[in-house]
Amino acid sequence: MKSYSIGVDIGGMSIKCGIVDDTGKIIRSDRVSVAKDAAKDVESIVNLINILLKKQNIFITDVKGVGVGCPGAVNSSSGIIEILPNLNWENVEIVKILEEKLNTKVRITNDANAAALAEYKFGAAKDFNSCAMFTIGTGIGGAYIENGKMLEGKFGKGSELGHVTLVLDGIPCSCGRKGCIERYISATALIEQTKSVMANDKDSLMWNIANNLDNVDGKTAFTAAKQGDKTAIGVVDTYVKYLSESIMSMVNVFRPDAFILGGGVSGQGDYLINKIKAYCEKFDYGYKGTPVPKIICAKLGNDAGIIGAASLMI
Amino acid sequence: MKSYSIGVDIGGMSIKCGIVDDTGKIIRSDRVSVAKDAAKDVESIVNLINILLKKQNIFITDVKGVGVGCPGAVNSSSGIIEILPNLNWENVEIVKILEEKLNTKVRITNDANAAALAEYKFGAAKDFNSCAMFTIGTGIGGAYIENGKMLEGKFGKGSELGHVTLVLDGIPCSCGRKGCIERYISATALIEQTKSVMANDKDSLMWNIANNLDNVDGKTAFTAAKQGDKTAIGVVDTYVKYLSESIMSMVNVFRPDAFILGGGVSGQGDYLINKIKAYCEKFDYGYKGTPVPKIICAKLGNDAGIIGAASLMI
Repeated sequence: MKSYSIGVDIGGMSIKCGIVDDTGKIIRSDRVSVAKDAAKDVESIVNLINILLKKQNIFITDVKGVGVGCPGAVNSSSGIIEILPNLNWENVEIVKILEEKLNTKVRITNDANAAALAEYKFGAAKDFNSCAMFTIGTGIGGAYIENGKMLEGKFGKGSELGHVTLVLDGIPCSCGRKGCIERYISATALIEQTKSVMANDKDSLMWNIANNLDNVDGKTAFTAAKQGDKTAIGVVDTYVKYLSESIMSMVNVFRPDAFILGGGVSGQGDYLINKIKAYCEKFDYGYKGTPVPKIICAKLGNDAGIIGAASLMI
Repeated sequence: MKSYSIGVDIGGMSIKCGIVDDTGKIIRSDRVSVAKDAAKDVESIVNLINILLKKQNIFITDVKGVGVGCPGAVNSSSGIIEILPNLNWENVEIVKILEEKLNTKVRITNDANAAALAEYKFGAAKDFNSCAMFTIGTGIGGAYIENGKMLEGKFGKGSELGHVTLVLDGIPCSCGRKGCIERYISATALIEQTKSVMANDKDSLMWNIANNLDNVDGKTAFTAAKQGDKTAIGVVDTYVKYLSESIMSMVNVFRPDAFILGGGVSGQGDYLINKIKAYCEKFDYGYKGTPVPKIICAKLGNDAGIIGAASLMI
């Protein structure tokens, strides 16, 4: 019985590969910078995997296969990365190419699905039968898993939970629609919300923390709010409202056992979770008897990419 | 090999039962008025099923089982109808009771799931692998089916797609939240939208159609719009916007092959579908390459309840 799988986590700056055991532990991993050229980047992945195998003293025949997690538009059914703007990849038959070069099974999914799968199998949601997840970063990654199976949809393109309307005719979104959840709960959105409020309150503690607007990040408002800055508390409370309303909508869609929050903002831990819980309890999910999920922060951090990709094979 | 199943469709005024064959055809059916008393109503169901079997000259042992579709709060995992306000039912162990009285397997689901299952197996979506559905009535029923499996969620309570936010801080919803999809695309909402616009235009053709505000229904605006009444066209276009935005959000969640519209409004057929398609093409679903589903009206009409309930056993 083979007990290792390989996870490949393609990011905007680097590609990480790791050998993962059946308990979801990364045994050995490394990363390589991206060349922003599909042929060269794929070659780097193959080389890195071969180096890791050699260092670990195992053969490719000892692994169950290779899972690849990737941002951008992924068609998991055909095994093609359709477009990966940051890396200048277009229509790369990643599954076919890697299978030929590595002589093992390869599967692919988008990065949000990989992160959710990692948390579902080995992280925050490992004790639950179903979970929905928002990965909160520059954009919003979304995923839903039930009975071990990801909701992948047509062409395996994954759920795009960030592109559900939250505010009809609201802020224009990069996707072409208006008022998408992503425009209100992503780190990008939080930073915009923070800056906009700071501009109207020159006395806010947030100025001491960030010095200038260019330094504002997803933590600025939280840090100042924890120190009692009223303006910052306002920013956080508004953000929590957007996030909680988005969570409640998705809970009504999926009725999950757990709702996982990943990405940088989830680093706020209980401070954030307690505020979301308070909001959801006050405004409720809907009718009496609506199943209330456990809302929890992701646990695997940056490892989720490799572990989740490898989990496609575990 | 048994080739019949029984479907029970519990409604607010009557309960319909039918014997359905494996092709989804209702072989024999009848209805009974509701007593609005759980014990009496369950007795009526048992009697009606026995009468149907006798008339059809088959035994309960000749059927695969009984499926029950029901509005209200249904826990399909435990087989309990938790609350059915129109019939004064509360915590009725319908599966257990019917299994004891009928000596056959019984399963239960909510009415929106039953309708979607019928359309998926035998109706508008029978040629598709996955479909999402809005059943547009007094409220909004929602469902998603993929590879023959309904998304049922925790406690089998079903997806409540009508209770996803469309307008943050929008119109208060009966569920306790604000701005739910249901408050903008249900027949109830359409009627309110129609009345509100009519009040401001005493010359609209809609007054000729409805005579007075009490007669306004979900068809009023459509009928006048088809005759070129500009005010009515405005009502329809606004409704189409709400509906299309809701559809696009759910398409981004599920990426279904087909999106089915059921309930009274779907009677508008191509007139409605073409307007939705035009809106969605203009405003798009999101990023390039987003899978575009086929948007179609339900085909089975009022039979969907019985067929879908029976389909739980087919």
